[in-house]
Amino acid sequence: IKKFKLAILAGDGIGPEVMEEGIKILEVIKKKFMLKLDIKEYLVGGVAIDKFGTALPKSTIDGCLNADAVLFGSVGGDKWKHLPVEQQPERAALLPLRKILNLFVNIRSSKLYSSLSHLSPLKSKIVNNGFDILCVRELIGGIYYGIPKGQKMDNYKRRYAVDTSIYYEEEITRIANFAFEIATFRRKKVTSVDKANVLETSILWREVVNKVAKKYPEISLNHLYVDNASMQIIKNPMDFDVILCPNLFGDILSDECGMITGSIGMLPSASLNKSKFGLYEPAGGSAPDISGKNIANPIALILSISMLFKYSFEQLNIADAIESSVINVLKDGYRTFDILTTNTNEKLLSTSSMGSKISDYL
Amino acid sequence: IKKFKLAILAGDGIGPEVMEEGIKILEVIKKKFMLKLDIKEYLVGGVAIDKFGTALPKSTIDGCLNADAVLFGSVGGDKWKHLPVEQQPERAALLPLRKILNLFVNIRSSKLYSSLSHLSPLKSKIVNNGFDILCVRELIGGIYYGIPKGQKMDNYKRRYAVDTSIYYEEEITRIANFAFEIATFRRKKVTSVDKANVLETSILWREVVNKVAKKYPEISLNHLYVDNASMQIIKNPMDFDVILCPNLFGDILSDECGMITGSIGMLPSASLNKSKFGLYEPAGGSAPDISGKNIANPIALILSISMLFKYSFEQLNIADAIESSVINVLKDGYRTFDILTTNTNEKLLSTSSMGSKISDYL
Ligand SMILES: CC(C)[C@H](C(=O)O)[C@@H](O)C(=O)O
Ligand SMILES: CC(C)[C@H](C(=O)O)[C@@H](O)C(=O)O
Repeated sequence: IKKFKLAILAGDGIGPEVMEEGIKILEVIKKKFMLKLDIKEYLVGGVAIDKFGTALPKSTIDGCLNADAVLFGSVGGDKWKHLPVEQQPERAALLPLRKILNLFVNIRSSKLYSSLSHLSPLKSKIVNNGFDILCVRELIGGIYYGIPKGQKMDNYKRRYAVDTSIYYEEEITRIANFAFEIATFRRKKVTSVDKANVLETSILWREVVNKVAKKYPEISLNHLYVDNASMQIIKNPMDFDVILCPNLFGDILSDECGMITGSIGMLPSASLNKSKFGLYEPAGGSAPDISGKNIANPIALILSISMLFKYSFEQLNIADAIESSVINVLKDGYRTFDILTTNTNEKLLSTSSMGSKISDYL
Repeated sequence: IKKFKLAILAGDGIGPEVMEEGIKILEVIKKKFMLKLDIKEYLVGGVAIDKFGTALPKSTIDGCLNADAVLFGSVGGDKWKHLPVEQQPERAALLPLRKILNLFVNIRSSKLYSSLSHLSPLKSKIVNNGFDILCVRELIGGIYYGIPKGQKMDNYKRRYAVDTSIYYEEEITRIANFAFEIATFRRKKVTSVDKANVLETSILWREVVNKVAKKYPEISLNHLYVDNASMQIIKNPMDFDVILCPNLFGDILSDECGMITGSIGMLPSASLNKSKFGLYEPAGGSAPDISGKNIANPIALILSISMLFKYSFEQLNIADAIESSVINVLKDGYRTFDILTTNTNEKLLSTSSMGSKISDYL
């Protein structure tokens, strides 16, 4: 019997609701696959501010460091919007956690499930099985973390603000390696995104990516400027397989890629470090407007669990079983409200019924 | 008789071809509206490198400074890709020219002309007259120009690159003022884009935009994070009127907005400074793949001339006359190859025939 330690950080908004469904799935998996899963829950985000006065308590950090993987709900909400930005859940919890856990890779999959292809705003572009884009985003470098960063006053008492984008050659090498490795298991195509006609970090980015590419002669590589990439994703979504991006560009383009599936509430994400360790979370946010109503879509979290079994626990059969259950539930017409249309064969489910339905299919 | 001085910089790729059609239009306008237009041509970009060894010769700068407005084609092409980035046409001509001419505003209009609405990849989202988005982009600040910028080696001999994003309060105030002013003539709605949950420049941006907004109580303002904006443009394109962006975000989002019209070769742009002075150019690039074939779409340049008459020469009747001719030519089914579909009433025109056709309609 394998044994895995999992830290659960449900967070705020719809986080706890979808996490409950995730735990349902985990319980079924434990029994069915005879796993020993040691699950511990920790506070993060607004709920942690309320209880401990900080969005990322030391107990939570230690809990994550002691686990084999972290399952994350979402953080943030109007209740904490009055705080200075540095203390708000997103910036005070998510960003330091990524850095502390050394999660330099973020992957978001924008896959169009065939039962939901009618939801895509780019329906007319879909050929065969539709698009299946994997954004590989560098997550702990670039303009998110570079210093100096802050507000200042110059000698003439004029106020200004500064952010600094920095990339080390080594940081680019490791994320590029990851992108090319993962591309070998896919359609062998990497599109690297930068703004090398303007940014020095992008010039270095492109040079290093080209160097890494030499080790992967079977992978085809092309480079796009970020402005052009934001167009091509809409124009030719079928042309993309792996998109490799620096932190900020990955933030923007992965959301754009998510949106063209038409079902952003379905999309999982994984943030990984060099070892098998990873943090898994829905790509969407805490959605305070729909929280507490039992209507949120738990599928993004459930697919994040599938990624967790794939990347951190290396149990591919379990990862596949979870994804298959989701696919079959969708095929049979079950929908949460965000993916419901007027098609007659669709049946509306609440958050909890969707979780139960997917468990039943497992 | 009014007198205006116009500097023409045709540049590289399709630049000279579409410029020829622009000059055709200008000749007709001169006669029809009894204008005295003093036109002088200057070299810029690759052609200037070839002749003078620099992408932006002093004679060109002086010519622009002496004119009331600049009409610009496009720069860049494979021929100059072997040069170091700092010497390439885009970075060595466009970026310094914007700075020297103090063009702090860039506006790009993404308007769906009703005869071309079938080209939009977001057809299903179109209500009534379709979307009409104006991106107002700050053009001479932010990460494009901040220093330090460059490649370095740290004490451990590790190579890294740096870019610096800086915004002064005053730079944000002036672009925000412009966006709100222009919004008063439109649907009275400004969406300001930033990444205030991560970037200090964005925190200042949001604060200053809110302050400017107080002077315009009739304009509704909302703020979106850039990742969310890249989604919402696809999800709800009808929701946008004026989008106000810092330099880099404006670069990315204005291209995304352009693409959802499905006819990026049609889109004009204007870069303005405090006085009436402006530089007008097609939003697309030099398109070396189609240059020299007499197939490029001159409409983006011709609509740029319309903007020029509106913003720099303040001849609204001429601006309207040009736009109307374009609209009528499209309504009558005339198309360059980039906007041609299989609809039976469409007639294919070359670059030069399209220019002549629009002149005829004037
Ligand atoms: C909340 C925010 C700081 C975060 C980011 O920009 O990384 C989010 O947008 C994401 O993509 O996970
Ligand atoms: C060519 C490049 C430097 C330029 C920019 O990024 O500003 C272009 O993309 C634009 O939008 O005009």
